[in-house]
Amino acid sequence: MLVSSQSVYSTIELMQNVVVIGGGTGTFVVLSGLKQYPIHISAVVTIMDSGGSTGRLRDQYGVVPPGDLRQCLVALSDAPDLWRRLFLYRFEKGDFKGHNFGNILLTALEQIAPSYQEVIDTAEYILQTKGDVIPVTFDKVHLCAKYEDGDILETEDLIDTAFHKKSRIKEVYLKPRAKANELALKAISQANYIILGPGDVYTSLIPNLVVDGIKKQLAQSKAKIIYIVNLMTKQGQTSDFTALDHIEVLESYLGRKVDIVIINSSKISKDARGYYEEFGEKIVEDNVEGRKDIKAVRADVISKTSFKKSDADEVARSLQRHDPQKLALVLSDIINS
Amino acid sequence: MLVSSQSVYSTIELMQNVVVIGGGTGTFVVLSGLKQYPIHISAVVTIMDSGGSTGRLRDQYGVVPPGDLRQCLVALSDAPDLWRRLFLYRFEKGDFKGHNFGNILLTALEQIAPSYQEVIDTAEYILQTKGDVIPVTFDKVHLCAKYEDGDILETEDLIDTAFHKKSRIKEVYLKPRAKANELALKAISQANYIILGPGDVYTSLIPNLVVDGIKKQLAQSKAKIIYIVNLMTKQGQTSDFTALDHIEVLESYLGRKVDIVIINSSKISKDARGYYEEFGEKIVEDNVEGRKDIKAVRADVISKTSFKKSDADEVARSLQRHDPQKLALVLSDIINS
Repeated sequence: MLVSSQSVYSTIELMQNVVVIGGGTGTFVVLSGLKQYPIHISAVVTIMDSGGSTGRLRDQYGVVPPGDLRQCLVALSDAPDLWRRLFLYRFEKGDFKGHNFGNILLTALEQIAPSYQEVIDTAEYILQTKGDVIPVTFDKVHLCAKYEDGDILETEDLIDTAFHKKSRIKEVYLKPRAKANELALKAISQANYIILGPGDVYTSLIPNLVVDGIKKQLAQSKAKIIYIVNLMTKQGQTSDFTALDHIEVLESYLGRKVDIVIINSSKISKDARGYYEEFGEKIVEDNVEGRKDIKAVRADVISKTSFKKSDADEVARSLQRHDPQKLALVLSDIINS
Repeated sequence: MLVSSQSVYSTIELMQNVVVIGGGTGTFVVLSGLKQYPIHISAVVTIMDSGGSTGRLRDQYGVVPPGDLRQCLVALSDAPDLWRRLFLYRFEKGDFKGHNFGNILLTALEQIAPSYQEVIDTAEYILQTKGDVIPVTFDKVHLCAKYEDGDILETEDLIDTAFHKKSRIKEVYLKPRAKANELALKAISQANYIILGPGDVYTSLIPNLVVDGIKKQLAQSKAKIIYIVNLMTKQGQTSDFTALDHIEVLESYLGRKVDIVIINSSKISKDARGYYEEFGEKIVEDNVEGRKDIKAVRADVISKTSFKKSDADEVARSLQRHDPQKLALVLSDIINS
């Protein structure tokens, strides 16, 4: 994967354009691994987050919700470790309690920058990101979910934590409607591959797809769509979902079919399973063989280290994660094959 | 003043070592101008600030007070304008109300960095500073003032805002005592010139001189000491002080004489004078001819633009300032003559 300096230009020309659509921890994992390969990466990122530090900043300063952007910027960063850790640092006391430093930086930048694109440009400059981080829209909107039982929940944090809901989500939409960032449309139009997941289907992936213009651009795109299937179901959001349930929900918002899926084939530890079972969550059943039109890539793509529950504000219940390196290796094999 | 790339090495060897001792707006002005000249600059900076944003961070997080460090880092910064403005940006509402972004950054860095020197190194790296910013000590101490009437005030913000005091300050000291940063001692020992002022004598300049080890190092130094005389007296701190009053107070804490003073010779506008007179403050009388052992350089060194009172938290009452470019030109003539 090393590129000699003499071949840099031809390599850049030949590099595949990959668009990663998402937000949240799953996208962080994909970007962290993929940035080590000679691939041109664009991360199209949801800005519908409304909980925690991000929600407070949104309410108090009227900013573009910085939480998912911050994570993607750091994931693609080549800056020194201390500087990357600073960006993710969360204050535990005092006036800044509960806020991530990166969120504070993006909030302050938005107050003085002439445009939000300059906020992103400046953050990319100081974090030396490899690739582009693209908010899916600059409009300040909220995510809403209508359930099959008729209930409606408004704001992303309520949907994300509606563990009590037995009824499935019938539809998610934005309020008000949002117009796609032109750079997101351009990245999708130039993409060779589009990667979705892993991540919360309704609160990290689909929020991008319901922005006006995105679905149409995806329909016109010749890119192959890769979906990385979640390891576990999520109570109140994708309870009892099989792999095909995830895929079919996504396809209904994509307006086209998924081409390739990556499914973990390695055993998830009994400890981790036991932890999830307490919340009524279980391993996503691999029933992809039911769809002969989808190429399934099965591999060991999980991390051997369990994560603590307290290491980032939005990761309250993700114990077993994908491994950035394993996942990136499988992805690059597909992308560069 | 331009240096061709071929002569960079010999120029660096020949560059004069200049130590600027202080903190506050006056030091910001000196550093901002001087950084444009081929001079090696070390800023030895007070960390006794206890008011405003800095005071709250000090109380809540136990950090090295970041206010004066932040200003000196930005003054020496060669980073893009937006990034420099970000560092000085002060939040006006919400959870971060009253805090400067730069203070928040230094506070977060101190939580994760292995040492305070790494905080400084990282801040210098991200701000691309020209020269070194050196906290005079790493000890967390408070400034105290004993007045001729027997009163004692403890903490810098109380002394700084004791406008009501009619009695002169008899002595300032630290509580507890503080040990000098080795880098500050080294910079002083290698200095060709040491610059003090403009700035509040008792709260920006002398706090550096009362740190254990500094006075002794200054006494051993062969550097010439330049003092830039304040434009205006300060009510409750240097009320009715003449130029020689300022010099003699400084000399008592320096343990040696001042060699050169720079005094403004240009007229301060009636508007500005009227503003200061409301606070009982007036133009510092130039009586330096009374000291034949001091070289006095008189020049127009003031800014033609008045400053708004609200543009930085610690600058509440400084309307007429020195001009960075004019001052730096006079200084570089002295230093490189």
